[in-house]
Amino acid sequence: MNIYFACSITGGREFESVYKAIVDALASQGHVIPTAHLAEPGLTSEAALSPLQVYERDAAWIRACNALIAEVSVPSHGVGYEIGYALGEGKPVLCLFQEGRRLSKMISGNPHPKLQVKSYGDTEAAIALAADFLVTRGL
Amino acid sequence: MNIYFACSITGGREFESVYKAIVDALASQGHVIPTAHLAEPGLTSEAALSPLQVYERDAAWIRACNALIAEVSVPSHGVGYEIGYALGEGKPVLCLFQEGRRLSKMISGNPHPKLQVKSYGDTEAAIALAADFLVTRGL
Repeated sequence: MNIYFACSITGGREFESVYKAIVDALASQGHVIPTAHLAEPGLTSEAALSPLQVYERDAAWIRACNALIAEVSVPSHGVGYEIGYALGEGKPVLCLFQEGRRLSKMISGNPHPKLQVKSYGDTEAAIALAADFLVTRGL
Repeated sequence: MNIYFACSITGGREFESVYKAIVDALASQGHVIPTAHLAEPGLTSEAALSPLQVYERDAAWIRACNALIAEVSVPSHGVGYEIGYALGEGKPVLCLFQEGRRLSKMISGNPHPKLQVKSYGDTEAAIALAADFLVTRGL
């Protein structure tokens, strides 16, 4: 399946090893991740692209995906926007955050039937939650 | 007019003096700000309300507002979500950030005709940009 993986870029890269592990696990399960390069260690911007180019590319990827999985341990305007955009497009969305991190109530309190919000203890648990989400949604 | 002011809560309160100054200026101009209490110094959560209560209240306030003004210097999933939600409801949106802060390209690159993104030098400039935005939109 085509899975849009959303993670903080400008907001901070403290969790990039988790991003990379989730993306690698999804790819090893046969999924296509158009945003895989955003999980690479060391990425802090996509300087070669204008803001409009990034927006239009990412919005098109969300419209084309089967589901969106967001790692939301580190605050990000872009990821918050993408979660709402994907739900508006009717896509199933999973938000994962590390236990003990504080998450906006606009995400954790959102009753949208296509949204799941889960906390994880370690990276392996995050990967298992992502796999469960996709199986449950038939993806 | 009824203006929804959006700012980071869980994501960090480093800019709360700016939030408070913008809200006070809008109120002094006669606008109603349902989220005014979120700009108060020292707020880091709304512990008395469940996540669902916060979500449903804030979403209802956005649906009822004439415009949304967001301070986006500090990353926030909730504010990113609210920007998209307001645009989806057809509301004019102004995003203000301090010069030199990095903003997600999902916000700065969004070509939506009802979205304006502006940087400011000091708090007085932010207040002036907010006033200009409302006048330009006939609010």
